[in-house]
Amino acid sequence: MSHPFFERHQETLEQAVATVRSRTYWSAYPEIPSGKIYGETAKADSEAAFNARLNKPFEIDQPGTTGRVGAETSPYGMALEITYPRADLDVLLKAAKAANPEWRDAGIEARVGVCLEILARLNKRSFEIAYAVMHTTGQAFMMAFQAGGPHAQDRGLEAVAFAYDEMKRVPAKVVWEKPGKTESIKLEKTYRILPRGVGVVVGVSTFPTWNSYPAIFADLATGNAVVVKPHPGAILPLALTVETARAVLKEAGFDPNLVTLAADTVEAPITKQLVTHRDVAIVDFTGGTAFGDWIEQNARQAIVFTEKAGVNAVILDSVPDLPGVVGNLAFTLSLYSGQMCTTSQNIFLPKDGILVGGQRVSVADFAKALAGGIEKLLGDPARAVEILGAIQNPATVRRLEAAPSEGGEVVLPSKSVTHPQFPQARVRTPLILKVRADQEKVYDREMFGPITYLIATESTDDSIARAARAARERGAITCAIYSTDPKVLAKVSEQATAAGAATSCNLLGNIYVNQSAAFSDYHVSGANPAGNATLTDAAYVTTRFHVGQSRVPV
Amino acid sequence: MSHPFFERHQETLEQAVATVRSRTYWSAYPEIPSGKIYGETAKADSEAAFNARLNKPFEIDQPGTTGRVGAETSPYGMALEITYPRADLDVLLKAAKAANPEWRDAGIEARVGVCLEILARLNKRSFEIAYAVMHTTGQAFMMAFQAGGPHAQDRGLEAVAFAYDEMKRVPAKVVWEKPGKTESIKLEKTYRILPRGVGVVVGVSTFPTWNSYPAIFADLATGNAVVVKPHPGAILPLALTVETARAVLKEAGFDPNLVTLAADTVEAPITKQLVTHRDVAIVDFTGGTAFGDWIEQNARQAIVFTEKAGVNAVILDSVPDLPGVVGNLAFTLSLYSGQMCTTSQNIFLPKDGILVGGQRVSVADFAKALAGGIEKLLGDPARAVEILGAIQNPATVRRLEAAPSEGGEVVLPSKSVTHPQFPQARVRTPLILKVRADQEKVYDREMFGPITYLIATESTDDSIARAARAARERGAITCAIYSTDPKVLAKVSEQATAAGAATSCNLLGNIYVNQSAAFSDYHVSGANPAGNATLTDAAYVTTRFHVGQSRVPV
Repeated sequence: MSHPFFERHQETLEQAVATVRSRTYWSAYPEIPSGKIYGETAKADSEAAFNARLNKPFEIDQPGTTGRVGAETSPYGMALEITYPRADLDVLLKAAKAANPEWRDAGIEARVGVCLEILARLNKRSFEIAYAVMHTTGQAFMMAFQAGGPHAQDRGLEAVAFAYDEMKRVPAKVVWEKPGKTESIKLEKTYRILPRGVGVVVGVSTFPTWNSYPAIFADLATGNAVVVKPHPGAILPLALTVETARAVLKEAGFDPNLVTLAADTVEAPITKQLVTHRDVAIVDFTGGTAFGDWIEQNARQAIVFTEKAGVNAVILDSVPDLPGVVGNLAFTLSLYSGQMCTTSQNIFLPKDGILVGGQRVSVADFAKALAGGIEKLLGDPARAVEILGAIQNPATVRRLEAAPSEGGEVVLPSKSVTHPQFPQARVRTPLILKVRADQEKVYDREMFGPITYLIATESTDDSIARAARAARERGAITCAIYSTDPKVLAKVSEQATAAGAATSCNLLGNIYVNQSAAFSDYHVSGANPAGNATLTDAAYVTTRFHVGQSRVPV
Repeated sequence: MSHPFFERHQETLEQAVATVRSRTYWSAYPEIPSGKIYGETAKADSEAAFNARLNKPFEIDQPGTTGRVGAETSPYGMALEITYPRADLDVLLKAAKAANPEWRDAGIEARVGVCLEILARLNKRSFEIAYAVMHTTGQAFMMAFQAGGPHAQDRGLEAVAFAYDEMKRVPAKVVWEKPGKTESIKLEKTYRILPRGVGVVVGVSTFPTWNSYPAIFADLATGNAVVVKPHPGAILPLALTVETARAVLKEAGFDPNLVTLAADTVEAPITKQLVTHRDVAIVDFTGGTAFGDWIEQNARQAIVFTEKAGVNAVILDSVPDLPGVVGNLAFTLSLYSGQMCTTSQNIFLPKDGILVGGQRVSVADFAKALAGGIEKLLGDPARAVEILGAIQNPATVRRLEAAPSEGGEVVLPSKSVTHPQFPQARVRTPLILKVRADQEKVYDREMFGPITYLIATESTDDSIARAARAARERGAITCAIYSTDPKVLAKVSEQATAAGAATSCNLLGNIYVNQSAAFSDYHVSGANPAGNATLTDAAYVTTRFHVGQSRVPV
């Protein structure tokens, strides 16, 4: 039961399946925004295509449309003035359900082939999606291209590979022969993949594609229909995705209502109604902890996958020299203004200082070095905005502005930066506050955005204990450790990973704790309150389908 | 990181891993209760061992014991008068949690080796467990031996094999090397299996071992501790299991509190408190729908796996001759007095009758033939009791006695049978009631026990639609279809399996719809209200652990 799209992408799939198991480096979609790869006019064409979307209805020919909705504003300044179909959820979900049986019965290869073709077409639209991601999330162009395009596509492919691999482990047909006293009992058994039904994917405002593609493609590959519910602030990247998916489905002869869009606004949100709807069998959510917890508790008719938020730690013990660690941390804290769920927030170091090349450097001196490193990195506004991007949500600016009054000593104040190209852009540099270890009320909470605490502890052991406890109790996705002592590295790796935080040891140069690579890094462990699901492990896909069976004597 | 127990059982494991994927016939533990296999004195020794347990405390040296509890009565007549430790759940769970990290860090091979050794020792105790199962569940000896012993052990092994296979797909260590412009970025990544914590396994009164072993061994293999909560009516088989597991754990140098017993009585149940305890991370439940639903809704701090109940259908369309189908159904309905979750309850057939060798046989004539078949099968009390066993729960007898007054025409009345060896045993023959299709209130509900409805429908299509709807709405684990028309077989297989019921077509001779074979038959699909979990699929094991990771430049 092959399929032309399956055959077209079979090599890519096989490489992806091998790589999710080997977990070595691989990427299917080039991360360099180069004209040589994506077409010499791709960037200009895509910017024009993006501009042509503005101030217009974004048409999606899906059932249950009862008006228009949409109020996105670019963090770079302008309102997008794009409207999307407003969906009657009952009608939309009914259409999604109706599309389901044919998709289920099409078989693994047809479904996976269609998924791979959608990903290939999304890849071709990477520049266009990059502009959409940039002007909804506030990411700088390069990040919007990479994280919103090829990296997101790799994450989607990873989910397809996992799903394909696990589904193919269930044989389609076998003969079961049990020896008997006189003659054997012989049955032919047939096994079928049974999807759960309709999945809802709730997108996040900061990484609308990267965080949604695994769920969208895991759902689709395992036979489910998908309703994409973007964050009201970042609809366009997912609307483009839905458009592409529907076109491919139609072309392949399937009901395009297998992928639909359910857009809303901050003023009239629909997510609660949608995720608790009786026709919804799967919910994937990326976003804040409070709402993620609400969904986990209330969407009881569905299986729920969440990626929420955490309090990520850096543990500083001893380093060979300062510039390496300062440079690495300065970039980590500045990249996309700390608006990544993997960005470090709390830097723990002994109150007596850290060892630098065997010499003790005080907390004050380290603070000064780090502040200096960030100022140097962001000294040139033109370069700064390409790292910082813009602040997605005005609430983040308010949090940033209020933080110094809530406790701690300002080591580095946050500043506004005027974007050379977009003077209205919300651009802010990182804020660093120094606090005592006993000021848990100040730092032991998620402070989303470019807010970092330097926390003076009793000792490295105390730092480790505090970071691990925060991971267990508040959730953490990442943990960075810097130490020249292998015993300390081992202890942190043991305790932090046991608490469910992915640990990075002694990262220097061009690799950062907030980076998570498809096919190799498990993003979110599921083992602490930062989320209950992992992008992507076996449980992420095997729970999206059941197995049906029939048997007949032969 | 191998382990002597792992090496001892490696061949068995490898065969099991291969078979859960090939799904062909295999069994690790001989199902014949033969002295040649289990030792010439095994039966007599085990009966003596069982008798020696009666009227005594069953000692388990576990923490938090605050008295004694237990009130089991054999369905064959006598009270067992065995008491078990009454557990302070806070203390018991604390001990289980404390045992966890060492077990987690012991690694996959050590854990799987210990599981396999426990299973091997349980296999050696199969006769003893058979007596315990017989005198708690009411199963006849042969079934108690097979289903309670080797078949349950096979199901446990199947879960270990799935868990091993899925855990080993996560590499322990890899080098990830991303090419760069000047030099590559090279990280060594380490991955760890992180268990969820403490699992609770809630046993059922009818199949205390068969339905609990998959969960117990899936939990243990993936690094979790297990608290075994038997049904108050069937504690002994699981107490023997816990005893064996603790002995092996101790011998292997692990904390025996990784497996503990939490016994209770019907009068003072502890399950609600236990499954909602903050220290419980996994709950496996087998039992009635109402309580299963309650656990699914209330044990929100845990991941919950349920096997509840359903309304299983037989669809009769056309057969080559009557004796084959009558003989097969008579045995299916009589075996263990219909107390299997896989036993058929509703037999749908067209009101105009079924085709037998091309001739139409009326509903009345089929009813007569089936009644006659059952009477013939159970005519000799000595043979009858070896098929029927005894009724586990007096409530089932009451349900059986009340059923004729609740609607339908009695085709075959239920009778008491005097057990030649145990005159006090609760032995009942099947009741068959004929109803109209529109009497849904009578038949479209679970009537646990030897109660069968013959339902006269408009047509086979009507039968199929009713059976599929019942599966979707009430739940169903099995569906049997008899038809000489391949199109009808295909239609039923399609509709019933899509509704989550495992379909058996035209079973004749010594294979029955209520039998489910380890390594090959997926027991419960999870796709309808009969349960949310499958014994055993990949989701059953992959959801019991997370993956932690750390990375360091090389």
